[in-house]
Amino acid sequence: MIQSSQPLAQRMERIAPFHVMEVMRRAAELERSGRRVIHMEVGEPDFPPAGPVVEAGIAALRAGRTRYSLAAGLPELREAIAMHHAGGVDPARVFVTPGASGALLVALGLVTDPGDRVLLPDPGYPCNRHFVELVNGVPRDVAAGPETRYQPDVAAFEAAWEGRVAALLAASPANPTGTALGPEELAALAALAQTRGVSLIVDEIYHGLHYSEGIGSAVRDAPGAFVVNSFSKYYGMTGWRLGWLVVPEGYQGPAEKLIQNLFIAAPTPAQHAAMGCFSPAATEIFEARREAFRARRDFLLPALRELGFRVAVEPEGAFYIYADCSALTDDSEAFCLQLLEQAGVAATPGLDFGRQAPRRHLRFTYTADLPVLEEAVERIARFLGG
Amino acid sequence: MIQSSQPLAQRMERIAPFHVMEVMRRAAELERSGRRVIHMEVGEPDFPPAGPVVEAGIAALRAGRTRYSLAAGLPELREAIAMHHAGGVDPARVFVTPGASGALLVALGLVTDPGDRVLLPDPGYPCNRHFVELVNGVPRDVAAGPETRYQPDVAAFEAAWEGRVAALLAASPANPTGTALGPEELAALAALAQTRGVSLIVDEIYHGLHYSEGIGSAVRDAPGAFVVNSFSKYYGMTGWRLGWLVVPEGYQGPAEKLIQNLFIAAPTPAQHAAMGCFSPAATEIFEARREAFRARRDFLLPALRELGFRVAVEPEGAFYIYADCSALTDDSEAFCLQLLEQAGVAATPGLDFGRQAPRRHLRFTYTADLPVLEEAVERIARFLGG
Repeated sequence: MIQSSQPLAQRMERIAPFHVMEVMRRAAELERSGRRVIHMEVGEPDFPPAGPVVEAGIAALRAGRTRYSLAAGLPELREAIAMHHAGGVDPARVFVTPGASGALLVALGLVTDPGDRVLLPDPGYPCNRHFVELVNGVPRDVAAGPETRYQPDVAAFEAAWEGRVAALLAASPANPTGTALGPEELAALAALAQTRGVSLIVDEIYHGLHYSEGIGSAVRDAPGAFVVNSFSKYYGMTGWRLGWLVVPEGYQGPAEKLIQNLFIAAPTPAQHAAMGCFSPAATEIFEARREAFRARRDFLLPALRELGFRVAVEPEGAFYIYADCSALTDDSEAFCLQLLEQAGVAATPGLDFGRQAPRRHLRFTYTADLPVLEEAVERIARFLGG
Repeated sequence: MIQSSQPLAQRMERIAPFHVMEVMRRAAELERSGRRVIHMEVGEPDFPPAGPVVEAGIAALRAGRTRYSLAAGLPELREAIAMHHAGGVDPARVFVTPGASGALLVALGLVTDPGDRVLLPDPGYPCNRHFVELVNGVPRDVAAGPETRYQPDVAAFEAAWEGRVAALLAASPANPTGTALGPEELAALAALAQTRGVSLIVDEIYHGLHYSEGIGSAVRDAPGAFVVNSFSKYYGMTGWRLGWLVVPEGYQGPAEKLIQNLFIAAPTPAQHAAMGCFSPAATEIFEARREAFRARRDFLLPALRELGFRVAVEPEGAFYIYADCSALTDDSEAFCLQLLEQAGVAATPGLDFGRQAPRRHLRFTYTADLPVLEEAVERIARFLGG
């Protein structure tokens, strides 16, 4: 434990540990004692690394390509990313980063002064508010419910406005709800940000893993936005720690300066491996996986509803179902621990995603294969019936 | 360019671009036009990746070991690092990070509140002050000259004290001077920090690349310090982006929480590759390289002095010579650009390392082989004679 004589920054009191850690700790204990646990708490795709990515990585290692890259990333990777965006984008606006984490840190570092508000969707990804804390901004939750598909709209952001606002955050498809923004919704948020003279940051790390037509693309639809993306989800490169940031016109110089200082550059082996993502053979693999995720969602969503969970809005992307469990319990955290203990199914308590009725919600991931999900549903059914 | 209507955090005005970038830009131009440039400006070892590191990396890729690691790092890597420290350290205090950059960000994020002073050696590594800016601390230079081997001592830190101080930074061996701290010096800084109730952060990223006996080891000699280290320099793993942080007893929980949020984890392939660093065969390679660096220093130091550069303190480690060029010029930045233009030798202007007589200094690296260094010396001699 920290002694009272040991200095600790105030932000550390506001950076909460994840409630899911207690679930994961107990799951590991059960597994050590021989129980089989079905993991529906983990935000990591279950597929093995794609062959073309592994081969590109190995080729780079064999060739000794492990020196620092330029701060902005390998030029050929920046170009591949730029071409991959709907409608294209100037590669000079693309910065390769250590994960989407690095991209978000750069975007917030570029625009947030101490005390500035950053408006974030609630429910939302819990780390985002902690990045705001690191640069001494003030995270401000913007509640969004089923009526706007858990996506704060212009009215919701306007209603939450107070003090000096640095940035609005949006996520599409979003964690934990899987809902996405359409082109008009993105354009409306971009217009709001522009009118108010603040920055819009759009988290698109689950882009590609979407199962509806017509979802928006922030680079195309939200002019002036910072767009955060990742090789972790659609491309399945989680542990490589590689993402990218598309900056608005004008921010290229400051972004490069900040990346140089904070990271030197993103990992070089990961950048070479990522060059394996763009071939037709690789695309075929990733699209097959997208279809597998879709099939899992199409199985799990009605099955959970059948069991008494309410899912107000159909998730359009990512691999999450954010379920209202209020018909079954009034404390989703206790419910998650019981579900684990009695049924061997791990899920994430709603408390990790915000302050809006979190004890009435929990999050299931579908990062396991269909037969495993079928077994999970049987286990939950027995747990609820017993 | 940023438009006046586009928000930009105030810190970005205080994060200066590196002066060496202009040298590197011009060097690249000259190379494109067919000139051969000798690079004595780059802080990256020239050796190819070590075989055991490459093989460990390839084996991990082949085995599909590219998922997220635990936030603190692979347990086996934390243990190997812990054992490698002189006298050992509890592996629970070792956190694997995305580069030493990540380690420094975590240490500063843990202890720095907005407006807190962080005292840094001048001359020193230019990025350090920018990390302080990111978390809204106030970097305060502590000048140190040849009389204390460019290392601020207790009296120097005391003299620079003002307002609320969060942390003292020290580096051993240091960039750009190559000087190191002895055990007693480290102990004295640790005692100062403890008495004053502030944190001591020791940057040991060049540890291992030292050429004198008896330099200190912060984990052993500076109880209560945060110790930043890296696989980039001694182990030659620059582009992999892997480092580590040893935290003082009590900070394990907060460090893990911050790392989880900011990075998820360090790159997994790099962590597996780093396991290749600890075999006897790997040690033999790294020690041979250390000897090569020593031989280069032993050639370059007297040769530069012969040419009229003054090097007041013999560098004990790293691969830098911080040379006083005031006998040759009163503007080291202009001198660097002329040296490049006329002699095809690139070096880094003193302006990148602090505010203490920076125009009288420049930094040469010896990350090139002896014959190349010999040619560099001849070129500089002709330049100075002509």
